[in-house]
Amino acid sequence: MSNKKRPTINPKASERVHKRRKPLPEVDVLMEGILKGDRVLLSKAITFIESEHPTHQDISRQLIEHCLKARKPSIRVGITGSPGVGKSTFIEALGKHLLEKDNPLAVLAIDPSSQISHGSILGDKTRMQVLAADQRVYIRPSPAGNSLGGVAQKTRETIILCEAAGFENIFVETVGVGQSEIAVHSMVDCFVLLLLPGAGDDLQGIKRGIVEMADLVVVNKADTGRQQLAAESRKAYKNALHLFPPKENNWIPQVLSCSALENTGIAEVWAAVNDFRKHTSANGTFEEHRQTQARFWLYESIHQQLKRQFFEHPNIKTQLAQMEKQVEAGELSPFRAASDLLALIKISAK
Amino acid sequence: MSNKKRPTINPKASERVHKRRKPLPEVDVLMEGILKGDRVLLSKAITFIESEHPTHQDISRQLIEHCLKARKPSIRVGITGSPGVGKSTFIEALGKHLLEKDNPLAVLAIDPSSQISHGSILGDKTRMQVLAADQRVYIRPSPAGNSLGGVAQKTRETIILCEAAGFENIFVETVGVGQSEIAVHSMVDCFVLLLLPGAGDDLQGIKRGIVEMADLVVVNKADTGRQQLAAESRKAYKNALHLFPPKENNWIPQVLSCSALENTGIAEVWAAVNDFRKHTSANGTFEEHRQTQARFWLYESIHQQLKRQFFEHPNIKTQLAQMEKQVEAGELSPFRAASDLLALIKISAK
Repeated sequence: MSNKKRPTINPKASERVHKRRKPLPEVDVLMEGILKGDRVLLSKAITFIESEHPTHQDISRQLIEHCLKARKPSIRVGITGSPGVGKSTFIEALGKHLLEKDNPLAVLAIDPSSQISHGSILGDKTRMQVLAADQRVYIRPSPAGNSLGGVAQKTRETIILCEAAGFENIFVETVGVGQSEIAVHSMVDCFVLLLLPGAGDDLQGIKRGIVEMADLVVVNKADTGRQQLAAESRKAYKNALHLFPPKENNWIPQVLSCSALENTGIAEVWAAVNDFRKHTSANGTFEEHRQTQARFWLYESIHQQLKRQFFEHPNIKTQLAQMEKQVEAGELSPFRAASDLLALIKISAK
Repeated sequence: MSNKKRPTINPKASERVHKRRKPLPEVDVLMEGILKGDRVLLSKAITFIESEHPTHQDISRQLIEHCLKARKPSIRVGITGSPGVGKSTFIEALGKHLLEKDNPLAVLAIDPSSQISHGSILGDKTRMQVLAADQRVYIRPSPAGNSLGGVAQKTRETIILCEAAGFENIFVETVGVGQSEIAVHSMVDCFVLLLLPGAGDDLQGIKRGIVEMADLVVVNKADTGRQQLAAESRKAYKNALHLFPPKENNWIPQVLSCSALENTGIAEVWAAVNDFRKHTSANGTFEEHRQTQARFWLYESIHQQLKRQFFEHPNIKTQLAQMEKQVEAGELSPFRAASDLLALIKISAK
């Protein structure tokens, strides 16, 4: 699959005619392939989802509608941690554990920094050799995009397609350095934070607030000779998490340790994910959480689009820059400035 | 000061003529009073800020503009904690300490639940008898309002007026149960979280994320016979805070203990506030933080007003309810639903 060869369904509607491209499979063909778990057609379908091309909007809309209807039960696991914590090795080990039970798996990624590299940083198949070679695994690198919101939207819609294709286990990987965790957290059921043993007593490198989002904290690299250190870290993190108030789903975040390299503790991690799923399914918060997430994305998306239209309006653009300076300098009340700006425009029916 | 007697500056402009009300002091008179530190005229001016009456908007706008120009250096301290932690006693003790140094003090409050009680819960003068009786102290209960955003706006503008009136020390009190701390945190320089000694090892009752916002954590009620317990709690909280990554201003949150009742440890709390002020002033983050806050309120206020206009539009109202249900049920992609909704309206110049 290459992003460079983007198929167009209706060349006439497109201003640029891509002569060398093959004629496109229709939505029906794509859907048939997705439902059969055909990874080539799934990839083609995801390419439509990822495309910014206006003529692809209709196709991706239809694909998503069909896939939403065809969804099967799944567990979506978010995995984050600072660079160097061993995310790829961990995903490879956890994925191998799933394959032993013949569980199909999709590995997606969100990396907002991949705008230039087109997603080569995360979800790189070369770093997950066993998974990449297995027909029961689907790996897709981070989509490119100009905004985290856009990247997150594409990944969330890709999840829907993967679930329709029968991938019951969805991993979404991200880096532990910023806003991207919040995006991932709002699209997964279970959020796993990877940490290193003995990395000081602080959570250096992990953004404030990320720790609180974790359902599972896993001290990775508890390799031979470092088990004692890992056990101490595990205890310290456990005490720290204990200080947080309980989550709304009544789940107490678990702290585990493992060595992805030596394949120890991996089964325990997956058992904890299953415990989480059982616990939240039993008290109804699993489904509730998904509904809350869907509502979150609805309103988030409305707000983003509304703001874009507002701030791109020429009347606003010219005034805002000047007002912002006055507000920062303490010469103008921010509330008054906002009212003045809003008074410049009106919202009406189309 | 009574909210019931709301003065109007221009009875002709008002549709309802309030015959029994006294003719109003002009903005000039109010400003002269504020600049002299006249508490009666300051209260009258704040009543305009708090008023929802359209004819008062012009006056409050002018007052704020004048006061922004007349502002003096100040420190704004946010104080929060669960009910029962002793906020009033703590503020009374800390305020008395300031008065010993002849420092004027304004005590404001944000209580979103005070819509009905008109702010009687917090900032109640009867609970701060020494402060209430002192001419160097100005106490104002929480403004009423239909939304936290509205209440926060009024309090933030009240801070501006108090600063122009020469109150160099501004305390903003709030309850430790929700969104109101985030509002207070975004309008103060230094955020103080009060906790009880030995209240278990967890922060029960304190919302997730509040602890991370604290610049100072104070274990109150370290009264005679409970000092050992308080010392243990202090140590536990100190260890827990140590696990958080450093703040952007490079300030390491301090954990102290005090007995507001027995007046021990209070001077140390105020010394820590001063340390915070010196530290952040020296590295430039004090002023930077205020600029960030002003920008935050500008954009927050724009977003709120924009959303209100959008969601109140009849075309949106009728469609949204139905779409939200489909999105929650997983039948419709939230992103597509948002695009469809946005397609119903347009933003144009007035």
